[in-house]
Amino acid sequence: MSVTKNVAILGASGYTGAELVRLIVTHPGMRIAALSGDRKAGMAMAEVFPHLRHIDLPPLVTIDEIDFAGIDLVFCALPHGLSQAIVRELPKSVKVVDLGADFRLRDPKDYEKWYGRAHDAPEIQPEAVYGLTEFYRDDIRTARLVAGTGCNAATVQFALRPLISAGVIDLDEIICDLKNGVSGAGRSLKENMLYAERAQDVAAYSFGGTHRHLGEFDQEFSLLAGRDVRIVFTPHLVPANRGILATCYLRGDAGAIHDAMVSAYADEPFVVVLPKGKMPGMSDVQGSNFVHIGVAGDRVSGRAMVVATLDNLCKGSSGQALQNANLMLGFDETAGLMLAPVFP
Amino acid sequence: MSVTKNVAILGASGYTGAELVRLIVTHPGMRIAALSGDRKAGMAMAEVFPHLRHIDLPPLVTIDEIDFAGIDLVFCALPHGLSQAIVRELPKSVKVVDLGADFRLRDPKDYEKWYGRAHDAPEIQPEAVYGLTEFYRDDIRTARLVAGTGCNAATVQFALRPLISAGVIDLDEIICDLKNGVSGAGRSLKENMLYAERAQDVAAYSFGGTHRHLGEFDQEFSLLAGRDVRIVFTPHLVPANRGILATCYLRGDAGAIHDAMVSAYADEPFVVVLPKGKMPGMSDVQGSNFVHIGVAGDRVSGRAMVVATLDNLCKGSSGQALQNANLMLGFDETAGLMLAPVFP
Amino acid sequence: MSVTKNVAILGASGYTGAELVRLIVTHPGMRIAALSGDRKAGMAMAEVFPHLRHIDLPPLVTIDEIDFAGIDLVFCALPHGLSQAIVRELPKSVKVVDLGADFRLRDPKDYEKWYGRAHDAPEIQPEAVYGLTEFYRDDIRTARLVAGTGCNAATVQFALRPLISAGVIDLDEIICDLKNGVSGAGRSLKENMLYAERAQDVAAYSFGGTHRHLGEFDQEFSLLAGRDVRIVFTPHLVPANRGILATCYLRGDAGAIHDAMVSAYADEPFVVVLPKGKMPGMSDVQGSNFVHIGVAGDRVSGRAMVVATLDNLCKGSSGQALQNANLMLGFDETAGLMLAPVFP
Amino acid sequence: MSVTKNVAILGASGYTGAELVRLIVTHPGMRIAALSGDRKAGMAMAEVFPHLRHIDLPPLVTIDEIDFAGIDLVFCALPHGLSQAIVRELPKSVKVVDLGADFRLRDPKDYEKWYGRAHDAPEIQPEAVYGLTEFYRDDIRTARLVAGTGCNAATVQFALRPLISAGVIDLDEIICDLKNGVSGAGRSLKENMLYAERAQDVAAYSFGGTHRHLGEFDQEFSLLAGRDVRIVFTPHLVPANRGILATCYLRGDAGAIHDAMVSAYADEPFVVVLPKGKMPGMSDVQGSNFVHIGVAGDRVSGRAMVVATLDNLCKGSSGQALQNANLMLGFDETAGLMLAPVFP
Repeated sequence: MSVTKNVAILGASGYTGAELVRLIVTHPGMRIAALSGDRKAGMAMAEVFPHLRHIDLPPLVTIDEIDFAGIDLVFCALPHGLSQAIVRELPKSVKVVDLGADFRLRDPKDYEKWYGRAHDAPEIQPEAVYGLTEFYRDDIRTARLVAGTGCNAATVQFALRPLISAGVIDLDEIICDLKNGVSGAGRSLKENMLYAERAQDVAAYSFGGTHRHLGEFDQEFSLLAGRDVRIVFTPHLVPANRGILATCYLRGDAGAIHDAMVSAYADEPFVVVLPKGKMPGMSDVQGSNFVHIGVAGDRVSGRAMVVATLDNLCKGSSGQALQNANLMLGFDETAGLMLAPVFP
Repeated sequence: MSVTKNVAILGASGYTGAELVRLIVTHPGMRIAALSGDRKAGMAMAEVFPHLRHIDLPPLVTIDEIDFAGIDLVFCALPHGLSQAIVRELPKSVKVVDLGADFRLRDPKDYEKWYGRAHDAPEIQPEAVYGLTEFYRDDIRTARLVAGTGCNAATVQFALRPLISAGVIDLDEIICDLKNGVSGAGRSLKENMLYAERAQDVAAYSFGGTHRHLGEFDQEFSLLAGRDVRIVFTPHLVPANRGILATCYLRGDAGAIHDAMVSAYADEPFVVVLPKGKMPGMSDVQGSNFVHIGVAGDRVSGRAMVVATLDNLCKGSSGQALQNANLMLGFDETAGLMLAPVFP
Repeated sequence: MSVTKNVAILGASGYTGAELVRLIVTHPGMRIAALSGDRKAGMAMAEVFPHLRHIDLPPLVTIDEIDFAGIDLVFCALPHGLSQAIVRELPKSVKVVDLGADFRLRDPKDYEKWYGRAHDAPEIQPEAVYGLTEFYRDDIRTARLVAGTGCNAATVQFALRPLISAGVIDLDEIICDLKNGVSGAGRSLKENMLYAERAQDVAAYSFGGTHRHLGEFDQEFSLLAGRDVRIVFTPHLVPANRGILATCYLRGDAGAIHDAMVSAYADEPFVVVLPKGKMPGMSDVQGSNFVHIGVAGDRVSGRAMVVATLDNLCKGSSGQALQNANLMLGFDETAGLMLAPVFP
Repeated sequence: MSVTKNVAILGASGYTGAELVRLIVTHPGMRIAALSGDRKAGMAMAEVFPHLRHIDLPPLVTIDEIDFAGIDLVFCALPHGLSQAIVRELPKSVKVVDLGADFRLRDPKDYEKWYGRAHDAPEIQPEAVYGLTEFYRDDIRTARLVAGTGCNAATVQFALRPLISAGVIDLDEIICDLKNGVSGAGRSLKENMLYAERAQDVAAYSFGGTHRHLGEFDQEFSLLAGRDVRIVFTPHLVPANRGILATCYLRGDAGAIHDAMVSAYADEPFVVVLPKGKMPGMSDVQGSNFVHIGVAGDRVSGRAMVVATLDNLCKGSSGQALQNANLMLGFDETAGLMLAPVFP
């Protein structure tokens, strides 16, 4: 790849923005041409994220200040709800990977249902491709607009899609219990995200069928199954920075489930299926674009469990975004993404 | 209560031993007369547990060195498998609360099945009372030997017993996902318990129906239901010192479940049932003898969840043991146990 | 003590307010008659602090709504700068323990210098007694208004006062390096207090002689020494909920330093001096009112170090406040405060 | 660089071994040809370190099983004391980077003094080059044997060497207070390294002039200053996985110190000197080969402080080792090492 592509990151003062910078820095063909951060416009990235101080980066500006003429692709790492209006205004020549929720739901009515507000750019929605790379690779390659998945949504789909496709589980008995690192809540100020509140605590949140990522599950699993699928889904905050670990309780044969998993991911560079009976830990993927998946049976006949884990900021968000951008810009899909996990 | 009772703690160099000392120190009528710790015999408790340095305590000795003549009650906080032989040798006048697994299973064959070795004192087993205070209070009051429950076993039983008794849940669809603080593994040296391995990690262990506390669940839930009950149960290690949070996925009506819970625990000093739709966090009970329980429904009709949380070292082990000892020695059940949780 | 005293806690929705409630709950003669929390007025404490749900407490109200007629003592756990105006308006019959910084500095000019604003109640300042119980016990007993010390200020004073009094250290070579748990920053919303920012991080703050507790050090150490004393003091945030550990680098003889320490604290119920050459850890005092102090020499001749550690929310703030209140109300000084540390 | 070099990692089952693998995986010209791990010989790396499961690696073998004929360079990540005998037996054609303490001290008598045992290969010691790359670059380039520095030793030397060289600090008043992440203790089993012991704790260790890295400080600083230098040095364990933050209390002018620092590191790719008055945090360098250094003055005239921070497993050990290996094998010094820090 001899040609360097210019990218802009909108919302670079948040954790997913910083993660994009971290990844792109070692990318062989991508150059960060612009960074926006409305509330922190005018500041250097080194002030906002001292860990990036060694890198020569453009300063944070407002979106209005960016000249999109020379930009090949824009990463939108904005708070939910802002991308729709912004993407609408971008030149059509600019490709877009949105990391937020604004274009994930195909039907604007679903967007309104789950996000409580009307879609601001329903006319663009049809061209948005759902950004779960491993399952929408061909569409992503030719897309102008890719909608990154929710980080929980990605994790659970890695665990379940091959099983739904292979018809090896009971679709009416899917229970997903998630353990989520705290960075998923972003850098915004909330009392329950303070260190003293979260350290040493574990608690369920958005339980009972209220979490917005259910919109994605309903859409994707129903599409895949050809019938309505409604999973039970409970995320829990755990005292860790990064990572999502999804424990899925299923009805099905563990052997058939493991076979389906191995077969589905045989050629995937980022998905590792463990030997049957082995389970991954959340820190096995920290700082990386890998997904680890384990399958086990149970002494209760007909019961099985699948555990999938990934790094919410990387594979669950910014890594996935870069993987998609690689496809959209003609790079090798894994460029900048083969960093091994950081352990311990 | 004017008479002071003398107690001994066997295995005082472990975390549950230290927790007993912490609690008994503020007890109005109990005196710690002897402490054993075989590998650390000869050491002062202040050397083994510097946080207890301000307390005037007997030194650690071997069990052989203890004169049980003046002892009213013995707490056995020994590694699993050691209590059976030791309790057999104690004078019959000494009451015993065992914190280990040695006398929890009524049928020695179950002990052999789950613990992989023959019971060393099957002739004593029949007099052992299962130590879940809230449900065996009367038997405990008159018992000579009480078998403390497993900490996971206690948590899940608080969540489920009232529901099984009230007949408000489907007994064939019980899934319990546990998040466990690290101190439950005790102070023994294992690579996967090192700080660097556990900080920032979450991982399932003893999954698939292999965890030994299943012996207790099978025994207790089947007894209660009058039929075989086999739950699905997956514990996970989370990066926290203390605490177990059990998320139970059930089939049943959330309203009926909440009613049954409120009714069952109305007079219990240590069990707090939250308003319907509220869920507890693990740090809400840290350092205390309280159990917090939440109940919620789900958008999927007929589905409900119950979350129960307690401190594994206190209510799940040493606090429960003291609660039982209080009953056995004629103290107020709550003596030494009304300490509020420590937050943050 | 047969008479129950009524107390009010102003600012009960913060961490030190909750800590006061935790301690007073097991106090034999104190009753919580009122709780204020301006922004959360109207809420139950159980909503603001679920770990206190088992306790029957008055609801949070605004300060204006409190009838101080029946109140014996008020704890002011308010944000810095608010107590001066409020204390001025309280009936003179009400005793006050202020946990904030408003009355710590004897000279209102010092207050203005360190806090950047004029003192709002300079006419009351002269009656304020500096609340480091172990060193101002007699004055506190008869005081109407006691000014709780800063938590850092308390820790370092426990380490240094006996040495300054005994004349065993060089007053011009005192360097104090502090490691501070995060709860010291309170429950207010700041980006750098988010879990994801603090977990796994250690960083100095308010270094170079800018930290406000230096006002207390200057005042107290100079008073004690009879000459100006200016220490070098650098606090660091560490990823822990509770605790301050102060490492003090001194010029002096370690033997003489240890002797002075042992002698000064021989009769103190809450101060534990370790054997020479042993050092305390921050978690040795967690959740308790104890201070642990260690002394050691160095291979560099004439050099010594003292390490002091305490729980910032308890001994460093709310525990100290209760200890003072006990003296002011005629209770035993240790009432409600003999809880052993919680470890692990 | 078109030629690929073969390397072996001895002691690959420890944390520094795994870190070497993580780094070398993205190196453009290095191939891992052999991995040893005596106690875990026969196991796959994926079993010992599941986070490396996606990488095709040779299995762990015993050192005896390795054919060193095709190996260009050996990394010795062995427990202290084992490298001397092993290096002695290696073919002279094999270059060696030792990550342990075995060859750090130039004088075998110093080794005996600090490590309590005679040097096993004193005849090799003279050819060992001290591996602090930034200061011994030319010697390292041509060395056959490079002795990696201690991780504490590296951190403090980055903070102090330019100041000693420039003559801007008082050499008799150097106090270094270190905060150390837990991974520095390695993966060996020690009670005080268990999660439950370390989480929420901070404590000094090896204080008073007993820490073995003092041997390196004495050697290097005295050599640099041309006179004996003896610093005061106290490391503390903090609850974090990775990182060392050294707070150095100095006598000197902060401006001159900052100037010396900026000047010394102007061309260094891995050393970042912050603007005067700014201080780095430990998580600013996590997972990377960067060092961040801050300088500030104090209100006490003539006092200054320097804070240096690095990742103990990377820049403090394995990253430094790879940086040295790059020089020894003719690669670009930064190959495989420009990964940005992982935050949060």
